[in-house]
Amino acid sequence: MRMVDVIEKKRNGEELTTEEIKFFVNGYTEGKIPDYQVSSLMMAIYFQDMNDRERADLTMAMVESGDKINLSGIEGIKVDKHSTGGVGDTTTLSLAAMVAAVGVPVAKMSGRGLGHTGGTIDKLESISGFHVELSSEQFTKQVNDIKMAVIGQSGNLTPADKKLYALRDVTGTVPSIPLIASSIMSKKIAAGADAIVLDVKTGEGAFMKTLEDSISLAKAMVQIGNRVGRNTMAIISDMSQPLGYAIGNALEVKEAIDTLKGNGPEDLQELCYTLGAQMVVLGGKAKTIEEARSLLVEVVQNGKAIEVFKKFIEAQGGDASVVDNPSLLPQAKFQIELPAKQDGYVAKMEADEIGVAAMLLGAGRATKESEIDLAVGLILHKKVGDQVKQGESLATIYSNTDDVQNVLDKLYAHIVISSDKVEAPTLIKEIVLD
Amino acid sequence: MRMVDVIEKKRNGEELTTEEIKFFVNGYTEGKIPDYQVSSLMMAIYFQDMNDRERADLTMAMVESGDKINLSGIEGIKVDKHSTGGVGDTTTLSLAAMVAAVGVPVAKMSGRGLGHTGGTIDKLESISGFHVELSSEQFTKQVNDIKMAVIGQSGNLTPADKKLYALRDVTGTVPSIPLIASSIMSKKIAAGADAIVLDVKTGEGAFMKTLEDSISLAKAMVQIGNRVGRNTMAIISDMSQPLGYAIGNALEVKEAIDTLKGNGPEDLQELCYTLGAQMVVLGGKAKTIEEARSLLVEVVQNGKAIEVFKKFIEAQGGDASVVDNPSLLPQAKFQIELPAKQDGYVAKMEADEIGVAAMLLGAGRATKESEIDLAVGLILHKKVGDQVKQGESLATIYSNTDDVQNVLDKLYAHIVISSDKVEAPTLIKEIVLD
Repeated sequence: MRMVDVIEKKRNGEELTTEEIKFFVNGYTEGKIPDYQVSSLMMAIYFQDMNDRERADLTMAMVESGDKINLSGIEGIKVDKHSTGGVGDTTTLSLAAMVAAVGVPVAKMSGRGLGHTGGTIDKLESISGFHVELSSEQFTKQVNDIKMAVIGQSGNLTPADKKLYALRDVTGTVPSIPLIASSIMSKKIAAGADAIVLDVKTGEGAFMKTLEDSISLAKAMVQIGNRVGRNTMAIISDMSQPLGYAIGNALEVKEAIDTLKGNGPEDLQELCYTLGAQMVVLGGKAKTIEEARSLLVEVVQNGKAIEVFKKFIEAQGGDASVVDNPSLLPQAKFQIELPAKQDGYVAKMEADEIGVAAMLLGAGRATKESEIDLAVGLILHKKVGDQVKQGESLATIYSNTDDVQNVLDKLYAHIVISSDKVEAPTLIKEIVLD
Repeated sequence: MRMVDVIEKKRNGEELTTEEIKFFVNGYTEGKIPDYQVSSLMMAIYFQDMNDRERADLTMAMVESGDKINLSGIEGIKVDKHSTGGVGDTTTLSLAAMVAAVGVPVAKMSGRGLGHTGGTIDKLESISGFHVELSSEQFTKQVNDIKMAVIGQSGNLTPADKKLYALRDVTGTVPSIPLIASSIMSKKIAAGADAIVLDVKTGEGAFMKTLEDSISLAKAMVQIGNRVGRNTMAIISDMSQPLGYAIGNALEVKEAIDTLKGNGPEDLQELCYTLGAQMVVLGGKAKTIEEARSLLVEVVQNGKAIEVFKKFIEAQGGDASVVDNPSLLPQAKFQIELPAKQDGYVAKMEADEIGVAAMLLGAGRATKESEIDLAVGLILHKKVGDQVKQGESLATIYSNTDDVQNVLDKLYAHIVISSDKVEAPTLIKEIVLD
């Protein structure tokens, strides 16, 4: 088989066979096929797309390129959740404890990541003593005992995806549905998921800016999952403004605790129930989405959800008293208000720009080496559609310096107040089941 | 400027600026931009095309990437001819001497090349003593004196094109009109042409298999030429069967001599007059194509054309008596006939496959290192449309071995005889003037 023939075939709009896909993924991972042939193929895929079978084959070829996490010691159906990223997305922690409380095992491998705030592990480390260094045996036992554990990334998962992604990033081939979908799905499958729930964000703060593209990506991933024997469901959720009120590591942990007690921001609470219901159904703990949702509401109301979260913190060395006393979390030195400059309605809160404001405070990493300040961030007091009076605070800035002029400027520039009434955006845009 | 932005711009169907085109051509030539970004851009160009301005800019950026031949010491308008390649194409030699006899200076830089037979220089070297090692001064003086000289390739012409072509060859990005057109035109312009005549071959033996693609390529090149101040004209000519009767180096030299005397095969003679008339008009020696053509017919009939060819051979150390006594050219040991197996009409003579048969005899190079046998080749006795009787020879094989079974098999397989009458193909399919 010659790589140039594979490129020409795809360029001409033909379907690649399973063998051809394995050939280029393995050849590239092993360094036998050069970058310049793969980048040319990626561009051909950008223009000619891949059908469902090719996408599934590409996903599995990337899964097979490296290590796979073995979760077979864990009882039950392991359902993983993936979000395509956004700002102030505190969902993972609340959601995990809720579905665990319903009996779905949550065996999560998580990272630190780059972005406006830290990854799930950074957030959890704002709880004193918390650590993610578990042996494989400890991890399995903890999930079997209390249904929830989070471990740091280990092993050489999907090296083909890592290499392909780095190449796509510099060759103009990132925004291709088959390539994005297979990249995400390969990582989830290699991490051991039996079933997958996807939260595809849409809007200005999301990777996919239009609803149409978001739906295409969601459908692509659901089809890949179902084709390779991992039941998969997806929702499309709004990311035109930040999710919830909190943006920042410790601030988001507090918000997650509130949500587990049923006192979270309306949008975050709703998103947890919607995604959680899909996870509970896929985990086999309910027959219908409605039944699953009422189980989740029940464990929040009767305290079982927050109880699981406490046990989880304790099991991983953390101080569980933060649950009852969130002031034990890292606190910023300064709290600075952002008063509205006029009366009116919040018309826009550009999620990505507000994320950048949090990053300017030190809440996120710009490079792998950056240090994160776990205490800092923002608490929004208004969301799009809310009425506001001049002088009323739109948000509180939590900072460890009192020189926050750049943050104030950024926020004023990207929070638009209109004199006309504005509709709040719909949170859940679409449910994608197949 | 970032290469990834240039790639994304073209990927999105936008026009690249002159600066962006220079940036990637120069960056690539100098090794500052890696192969994998350029191959991805080439694939984006394959899908999104380039407009006339971009094509002209790409051409000139490649011209500027290396040395340029200075022909300013030569009087008159230097008109170069380029053919996109075919089988048995003896045009260059006859054409050059004909237009030189009309007063158009022919200052030709030529190569050896890979293919079914050798390049122009290989063919000329079948004349005893002939050499192409001329100094720049000798070259200029010879053209001024007798209007014709051929020199071997020298200097570092269009290194960008060489590098891009090598990359395109292995990344599935060869068949792209803007890339092919700029590649050809950049080489002609760097070699010093003031005006250019193009012979774009079409049909099974040509790079462009369909008339539509051939016309697109011809138009693309004519538009580039005219945009960068080099008057350019093109014809589209048939390459479904070999041109003329001879395929082989010495055999083609003899055929070129016949053509210069007015005794060439009808198609070759016609092609020389058609291309020659365009060259004479572009060279300013006639106002109209008709006038130019009659000048060419005149120099063939009055012996001036063959006279120029003789002087040219002598000036470059060759034995000009071959013109009157072609048996002085290298002779093959064996002449083997190819008798027709049935009565009928020649329906097909697949040019590329017949070229391969000549190569099997040793007439061409498979790799740069291959030795060419100048004596061997084929003389066809029939062309498509001709009537043939069983046992009548379709072609004579000139070989230095009597074991030519593979050549016979190849020829029989690709010369089709039909019992129905067959039309001879039209030689000149189209004239492209703008």
